[in-house]
Amino acid sequence: MAEPREYPTALGASSRETITLLGHDLAEEVMGEVGFGELAFWLAAQRRPAPGETRVFEAVLAALADHGFTPTAIVTRLTYLSAPDSVQGALAAGLLGGGSRFLGVTEDTGRFLHDVLASAGEPPADEAGWDALALETVRAEREAGRFVPGLGHHVHKDGDPRTPRLMRIAAEEGTFGPHLALFAAIGRVHPEVLGKKLPLNGAGVCGAALADLGLPLELLRGFALLARTAGLIGQLAEELRRPVGNEIFLSVDLNNRSVDPAPYTPGDRHG
Amino acid sequence: MAEPREYPTALGASSRETITLLGHDLAEEVMGEVGFGELAFWLAAQRRPAPGETRVFEAVLAALADHGFTPTAIVTRLTYLSAPDSVQGALAAGLLGGGSRFLGVTEDTGRFLHDVLASAGEPPADEAGWDALALETVRAEREAGRFVPGLGHHVHKDGDPRTPRLMRIAAEEGTFGPHLALFAAIGRVHPEVLGKKLPLNGAGVCGAALADLGLPLELLRGFALLARTAGLIGQLAEELRRPVGNEIFLSVDLNNRSVDPAPYTPGDRHG
Amino acid sequence: MAEPREYPTALGASSRETITLLGHDLAEEVMGEVGFGELAFWLAAQRRPAPGETRVFEAVLAALADHGFTPTAIVTRLTYLSAPDSVQGALAAGLLGGGSRFLGVTEDTGRFLHDVLASAGEPPADEAGWDALALETVRAEREAGRFVPGLGHHVHKDGDPRTPRLMRIAAEEGTFGPHLALFAAIGRVHPEVLGKKLPLNGAGVCGAALADLGLPLELLRGFALLARTAGLIGQLAEELRRPVGNEIFLSVDLNNRSVDPAPYTPGDRHG
Amino acid sequence: MAEPREYPTALGASSRETITLLGHDLAEEVMGEVGFGELAFWLAAQRRPAPGETRVFEAVLAALADHGFTPTAIVTRLTYLSAPDSVQGALAAGLLGGGSRFLGVTEDTGRFLHDVLASAGEPPADEAGWDALALETVRAEREAGRFVPGLGHHVHKDGDPRTPRLMRIAAEEGTFGPHLALFAAIGRVHPEVLGKKLPLNGAGVCGAALADLGLPLELLRGFALLARTAGLIGQLAEELRRPVGNEIFLSVDLNNRSVDPAPYTPGDRHG
Repeated sequence: MAEPREYPTALGASSRETITLLGHDLAEEVMGEVGFGELAFWLAAQRRPAPGETRVFEAVLAALADHGFTPTAIVTRLTYLSAPDSVQGALAAGLLGGGSRFLGVTEDTGRFLHDVLASAGEPPADEAGWDALALETVRAEREAGRFVPGLGHHVHKDGDPRTPRLMRIAAEEGTFGPHLALFAAIGRVHPEVLGKKLPLNGAGVCGAALADLGLPLELLRGFALLARTAGLIGQLAEELRRPVGNEIFLSVDLNNRSVDPAPYTPGDRHG
Repeated sequence: MAEPREYPTALGASSRETITLLGHDLAEEVMGEVGFGELAFWLAAQRRPAPGETRVFEAVLAALADHGFTPTAIVTRLTYLSAPDSVQGALAAGLLGGGSRFLGVTEDTGRFLHDVLASAGEPPADEAGWDALALETVRAEREAGRFVPGLGHHVHKDGDPRTPRLMRIAAEEGTFGPHLALFAAIGRVHPEVLGKKLPLNGAGVCGAALADLGLPLELLRGFALLARTAGLIGQLAEELRRPVGNEIFLSVDLNNRSVDPAPYTPGDRHG
Repeated sequence: MAEPREYPTALGASSRETITLLGHDLAEEVMGEVGFGELAFWLAAQRRPAPGETRVFEAVLAALADHGFTPTAIVTRLTYLSAPDSVQGALAAGLLGGGSRFLGVTEDTGRFLHDVLASAGEPPADEAGWDALALETVRAEREAGRFVPGLGHHVHKDGDPRTPRLMRIAAEEGTFGPHLALFAAIGRVHPEVLGKKLPLNGAGVCGAALADLGLPLELLRGFALLARTAGLIGQLAEELRRPVGNEIFLSVDLNNRSVDPAPYTPGDRHG
Repeated sequence: MAEPREYPTALGASSRETITLLGHDLAEEVMGEVGFGELAFWLAAQRRPAPGETRVFEAVLAALADHGFTPTAIVTRLTYLSAPDSVQGALAAGLLGGGSRFLGVTEDTGRFLHDVLASAGEPPADEAGWDALALETVRAEREAGRFVPGLGHHVHKDGDPRTPRLMRIAAEEGTFGPHLALFAAIGRVHPEVLGKKLPLNGAGVCGAALADLGLPLELLRGFALLARTAGLIGQLAEELRRPVGNEIFLSVDLNNRSVDPAPYTPGDRHG
């Protein structure tokens, strides 16, 4: 039989009389004193953010909370239609769409910028320096046949309004750091390499801003999911008042068309 | 073939140039202007909360964000251990524990108080009136062999510190309404019926406070889940720095004891 | 610090040289010897089913595996569209729709029949006895304003072809027991009470058949989910060959209609 | 407004009188006639497997169904403890651990072998030819600093009993194809490169066998998840009879140790 173990944690703890969170008295020092965005930052970073950091962080969460009838929103509404007894299931199902394609850009961009900066060593001293680093970066990606994360948007082709706004907020709050600087420079120089001007998208700028806040890169997707949880609750609240889930289901089911099975053969493989 | 349908929504919408959320310009009027707790309230209620309402709402979220090594926290850590490529899966798995037993008290209490108030008609005019309604309520539950939701706690037997604190915050902000009044009265009068003094627990008072804020009762569990999402991100952040998931797994697996299968027979049934 | 614990199990176990499952050598006695349906039954009941029991069980799984573009199928396809890196997320999201409304009838019917039988004491000796019990049962539900689970179908109004077929298979294999007998009797007598003839649906007859097999009532929904897992893999396989997920998403997103927010007010509440 | 769309499918379809699955009458031609493993294969491949193919497929599912107290099993038990009202949530949570580390080897191995075979062109004619290809393959992985998927096991260091057994079953049924041939050759030649003998593990041989059956490579993980769904139902069935979830929870919670928060700093980053 193995020895009993101990499991260290700095998060929630309680005794008969007290409850603490991150070493603070939950009732007196956290409740009523710490905003929810501030608390989420604190939990993830294990340090309390400055007010300016909180404002940038909450601006990111606002940018990512809801984008209308995305697949994740539809999934949450349909799951609630199917299993109204389980709100947790409807929210969890929606979050499961937060993968590489729809919510992953935030994390991909943050990690990408971080890797470039880590390889580059000392950050550039001026805008010309940033532009040179960005040019080299875009060229390298182009040559490797890869896309630059955070560049391009299928709707906001002339510019995503969240991008300049978040950069401005970060600048106002003193958290405009190397990740945003490199991202902005990519926005300036990429047409020279790619031959066309693409927008820096909102999901990407959020990843850059979160990385500049020093939040763990492995969890950047997690912040997008936190924002989306609030959005999905909004979707459920709306589904309760103006339900569309059953209409969506019927719009698919009533338009099904039976076709013959098409057996897989080795040549079909996508892998 | 069915007619094309339209799907109404007041949440996120976008065109080539603009992005709106709840009818407001996302970049200029929401980002940097609206805190995350405020936004979550707004999304759920489709009305912008007053600052005092936001403070109460965020106090609730703080109260529910993390309670240490709960089943949900352990589940998120073990799922991340098993599938580190999918942060969304680890968070979703943790949220799926947000059901009747561990996170459900908030919703149960809010709904229970609402139902009592709806049956009672005109709310009492003074504390004596609330006490009379509470006494009748506790007696009815006792006679029906049911527990009063939100009453009792397995650790904080002499009082849950979150309860008086949240009532105080709600009073300060002018959102102490009938649900909290009835809940407080239950706390005063129940020993007369039950013969012992039980604490009003923190999950229950949160349900009462959310109901007083006019948030949809069907989604009270959803707010507990939103709070918990922030907590689970904290758990993952800590798992990255001080991992315990593998130790937990091994503490179970290495202490397994093989026993003989025990076939079900009709008499065994739990249903 | 607490004592180390032991965790008993009769399921999988392994040592350096051997792997056992349910007390049998996995490689030599299970692999290649035990079919998958048989194994699933064995795992759930901790007893090996007779071949006839396996045939009935697999007939139930076939009946529940796939029903075309249900909400669960749409959810799995949309989640895969959004997060193609996580097949487990797409399957899990689909299963989360397996709640009270779409997949719950199987469990509801099995539990309902079990409860009636448990209250009735000694089972009737002949068809007339079953009819009498069924009549009493339908009357009681009708008077209580409740529906009889498993009765009625929105498409197969003149009869669900799965129902007589499963009853026949159960009869052939000698597993037609009291749950199916009562269900069949309900099918015969309900028009006398309800004034119209409703079909016994396929989900309901599956619940009755599983209950007659002595499987745990608490997990009847679990078998529906197992069947559906196979169906959802089929949906994903088809999505790989003939993708429709993006079309479904666009059919909703492009038909969104922005409306004004509609704030909740106390009178709106659904709870 | 967009045009109405049509959604083709060869899976389930129904009219008022009939239900079909894969073009067959569900009640008469599938229920009672098609085993569950056979049906799962058919749904995924859109072709009915031969009996020998079904036997190999079901042997794979048996090999992967349950491995005792894995993280996925613990997660399902803890989620059921927390939310006993939602069996679908408990199963979904367990499946979400089916990612890269614990259940991913099956898919990784199948894809890896497929890629090697696709690059190699014409398959070797004899064992010496397979050994040469395997040697080249192991050398290339070694030089690239990568592990060969499916090679090595932390418990079954002297050989995983599932591996020779599955190869024997595949040989008996005539489905021992190039993926298994290459995998077996890797088992023979790798010590020459790596300097030590590692076992071919059971998860890996399952991936090779599934690939030889012509099943879609993108969904190999899906079959592991299907097998695991049956195992997790077994875990829940056992949890109902011999509960350990609460003990596991307490063994962690009671052994928590509060430590000081440790703020992230850029140097800490894992990304």
